[in-house]
Formats: sequence, C-alpha cells, structure tokens
Amino acid sequence: MAVYTEVSDEDLTAFLTAYDLGEVTAFKGIAEGVENSNYLLQTTGGSFILTLYEKRVAPEDLPYFLGLMEHLAAQGINCPTPVPARDGRTLRSLCGRPAALISFLEGLWPKRIQPYHCRELGAALAGLHLAGADFPGHRTNSLSLPGWRPLLEKCRDRAHEVQAGLAEDLEQELAALEADWPVGLPEGVIHADLFPDNVFFLGEKLTGLIDFYFACNDFFAYDLAVCLNAWCFEPDTAFNATKARFMLQAYRRVRPFSEAELAALPLLARGSALRFLLTRLYDWLNHPEGALVAPKDPLEYWRKLRFHRAVHGPGAYGLD
Amino acid sequence: MAVYTEVSDEDLTAFLTAYDLGEVTAFKGIAEGVENSNYLLQTTGGSFILTLYEKRVAPEDLPYFLGLMEHLAAQGINCPTPVPARDGRTLRSLCGRPAALISFLEGLWPKRIQPYHCRELGAALAGLHLAGADFPGHRTNSLSLPGWRPLLEKCRDRAHEVQAGLAEDLEQELAALEADWPVGLPEGVIHADLFPDNVFFLGEKLTGLIDFYFACNDFFAYDLAVCLNAWCFEPDTAFNATKARFMLQAYRRVRPFSEAELAALPLLARGSALRFLLTRLYDWLNHPEGALVAPKDPLEYWRKLRFHRAVHGPGAYGLD
Repeated sequence: MAVYTEVSDEDLTAFLTAYDLGEVTAFKGIAEGVENSNYLLQTTGGSFILTLYEKRVAPEDLPYFLGLMEHLAAQGINCPTPVPARDGRTLRSLCGRPAALISFLEGLWPKRIQPYHCRELGAALAGLHLAGADFPGHRTNSLSLPGWRPLLEKCRDRAHEVQAGLAEDLEQELAALEADWPVGLPEGVIHADLFPDNVFFLGEKLTGLIDFYFACNDFFAYDLAVCLNAWCFEPDTAFNATKARFMLQAYRRVRPFSEAELAALPLLARGSALRFLLTRLYDWLNHPEGALVAPKDPLEYWRKLRFHRAVHGPGAYGLD
Repeated sequence: MAVYTEVSDEDLTAFLTAYDLGEVTAFKGIAEGVENSNYLLQTTGGSFILTLYEKRVAPEDLPYFLGLMEHLAAQGINCPTPVPARDGRTLRSLCGRPAALISFLEGLWPKRIQPYHCRELGAALAGLHLAGADFPGHRTNSLSLPGWRPLLEKCRDRAHEVQAGLAEDLEQELAALEADWPVGLPEGVIHADLFPDNVFFLGEKLTGLIDFYFACNDFFAYDLAVCLNAWCFEPDTAFNATKARFMLQAYRRVRPFSEAELAALPLLARGSALRFLLTRLYDWLNHPEGALVAPKDPLEYWRKLRFHRAVHGPGAYGLD
C-alpha cells in the first residue's frame, strides 16, 4: 500500500504542461506497491500511471529502469512503457521527487496462484531474459551475494527477537552460499522481484510484467529461483512441485537452460530465499511505529530456505 | 487511505457473475477514503467503484445510503449511482462484508481550495438539498447534538493529553450549544461530511459529490456549517471570508435561506466544529499502534471552534 506524496492540483497541472495528453479526467492514488507513490491518471488521451520515486529508489538508477522498460516494450514485452514528454525525456520531477509517467497495463495480479499462472510466468520470464539481451545498460544486483553480509550484520544483534538462534542459522547459511555460489552461469537483465503482484493476467493469459525497480544484471537462473520462491509455495509454505514444473518447463521451451543452470537451482533458490528473508528481517526490526506499511513476515522465507536446503537436486522442482 | 479487505480473483469473479458488465480488465485498490475498502474496477462494460463496507458503517444504514444515491442521481445530481445486479439489487455481499458496485465519477478533488471551488460547492450543496426533498428515507444524524455528550464522556479523562484544559473547555462549549441549539430550521437530507476529498472538479467545474455514508436528515444550514469549516479556513486556520461569501451566495441563489438560518450559522458552525473535534479526538486517543490510517489533528477543529465563538453574527462569513 503506497501513496506517500500528495500531489496538489497545481503541481499536477504544471507537471502535465510538459506533455500532450489532453485534459485530466481522473487522478487517484493507488493502494499498491510499497516503494513508490503511484497514481492512476486518466486524461482525454488515455490512462496512465504516474509514479513518484520515494527514497528507497536511488535516483541514479532511474535511467536504467526507465530505459529498460522502453527497451523491453520495443521488443514486444508487455510491460509499462515510459511516456516521453514533448522534449523526449521520460524522467522528470514532481513535488521534489523524480517522477515518470508510464503506460497503464490492463490485467489483475493473481491473489491465489494456480499452475497455469506459473506456466504463463515461466514463458514470460524467458521472453524477458531474451528481450533484454541487447539492452546496453548495466546495473549490478546490489541485493545479491555480496549485499547479504552487510544486511545480516545490521540484523544480527536483534534477529533472536524474531526467532531464537536465527542469527547463527543465517550466518551458517551465508557462509555456505559464499563458499558454493556458482560462477559463469548465463546472465543478463533480470527482473529480480517478480512476485505475483508484479504480474498481471486477464483470465488465464498473462498481460503484463510491472515494477522493474529491482531489475539488474545477474544470472538468469537466479530470476527463476526468485520466482520459485514467490510462486510455488502454498500459503502454509508447502512446496508445490506441480507449479514449479509448469514454470520451469514453460521457461525452457522459450529459453532452454543449461545443465549447469539446472544443477545450480537449489543453491540459487536458497540464496534468493535468504535475500528476501534478510530484507524482510531488516524491515521487521526497523519499521517505524505506526508505519503505513505492515512489515512482511521474515520467517516465511526462513521456511522456504529450509525447504531448499533439504532438496537433493533440481528434480525436487518437478523436472524429470 | 483505505483498502482493508483483499479481494481474491475467485471472490471477484463469483461476485461479478450477478452482473452483466462484460470481462474484467483491471482491478486496483484505491488509496482514498478511510471508512471502507474501495477498488477501481474496469470491465469491457465501463469503469466502476467497488466498495466493501467495513465496520464503521452500520449495515442497517446501507439501504438509506444506496437508496439516496439512486434518488439523487435520478434527480440529476452528479453523484455515484449504485449499479443493480441482474436481480435488481444493489446491496450485496463480498468477502463477508456488505458491498456495492457504484458508477465511476470523473474529476479530481481539490487539494488547494480556491474561491471558485467554494462557489461551485455552494450551488451544488443547495441543489443536493432541493433534490433530496422527496426522498422517502429517514436517518437520524447520530453525530449531531445528542451524540456529542457521549463522545465527550469517552474522551474526558484523557483530553488533557492533547491540550491542557481541553475537557473543561469542551464541556463549557457543549453546555452552551445544548442551551442554545436552534429548533425548527428547514431540514431534509444533508450530506454531513462534504469535505474537499468528497467533491470532484474538472477544471473549475464541479463534476460530482461522493461518499454519502454520513448522509442523514438534519438542518440544511448545518450542512453549510460543515462546509464553512471544511472549505473556508486556510491551512494555518485563518478564516477566509471571501471563500465563505462565494459559497453562501452561490447557495442562496439556488436555495434562498431564511433569516433564522442565517442567524443560526455561527452556532451551527460551532456545533459542526465540535462534532469533528470530538470524533478526531476520540480517534486520536484510541487509534491502535501501527494503524494504517494516521489520525487527524483534533486541535485544527478546536481553533475553528474558537473562531466561530468570537464572531458577532453571520456577517463574519462574508455576507452583507
């Protein structure tokens, strides 16, 4: 749930003078996304999302994110497209924040995941990986392996407030990942945060991928690992191998993955679980009293991590 | 900011089978309103607001609210119109809550009030009062004079946490209002909560009134008093007599008010200020830790109350 910055009529009007969008007919804050302020803007020229980038997005990364969305849209990927103003620029300023107007995508994000969602997702993720191949930008994944130890350090002294022994367990896990993290896997542009609320569907058809504000350059298979964690566990944290098989098989039909990628999946899935565990743990321990956004349960990802630690190979993910 | 109830795909689909609206193309939580959960629903048949009524709305009042909106819309008032399902019913159930689908109104609510907003508002309020004349429903204003003492009792012991001496001051004020509250003024259906975020504009033209969930039967002039408080003070709580004059003059051109109504305005404005002061004070003292909605400052309304106590007649509101 978002909308942190209130945009006055005068500010909106002044902002829109840079564009040719016709007259404004509606402007409503959207209760989705936790990083930025998002408004639905309707004009006589169409529907748009107006995003104000709040403090968790580094302004210097915005040209990468916006450029990537433009690139992917030009390649036929269904994703929000930044709308250029008359001067051709997409990255602008509003209420003292970086801001951009992006196209409105139809569709609903799935609240209850079905196997067909995972099949569509797998194919779309592979398409995204292929479409990003010739994108010239580069952004290091700040939340990959080298980023996890500093996060753990910040949480270590208070991790026991969430669960006894958690700091020690995560220390061991991180040491194991640091020792065995793969090298040389195929890499390129990944989404890195493709949770269900970032994927729209109409009926059984995937209509769009949104929220590219964690996108970066990293192993393609790491993106798959993020999706395994985000899409293939039931609400009680039971792993659903059918959903995983649907996702991986659909992915490999579009972009065949190598034996090395497949073999690395359990370790990458542990890493991805640790990544979300650590950021959630940090937010849990540091969210301000009365914060608008309720912190998410870090232990959900500890249970997922435990699952991946216990698997004996990629067969656990439903592949033959 | 709202959206308390998350609606799953299955629940939405099941809900919509009762209607003939075509296929769903978008469904987004709206970060507006603090009483209910509101979603923007777009279908191949149009745009709608789906409202789930949360616990602050009494279910037994919903037929009054929905019936009133239907009545007013039929009279040509620009307000949300409940959309009947195929069986003709507008009040339904979703996720264990009462729910209704209402028409989507174009427009933006004004964040920075200009005199022309007040002029449009005055005319629209008078039109609303006239259009409600033959509405057969009746709902007592539970937040008028008889409702204030119980609220004050609930806050008395802790009011000093907000301001020293506040309980004693409010006790004196309430006693004065109880002694002098007018009787016999023209009455009918009033909105009772017509704050700027409940009034939409396109440019300088008022396009709609929304949120009828405090509507009730009471003095028309009390509705004007609510609007004086909500629209005619600057952010620093200075009273803007120009805005008040615009509002009252535009109102009286549509529905001339009597000398008695005019003379009662200062007292009604004190009453209206006390009403919002008390509900804000109660929310301030009782909001749960970490609540999604930040409580509003009760002292804003104490300053408005003080202003109205000091005026010597309706001339203070810009009338000749």
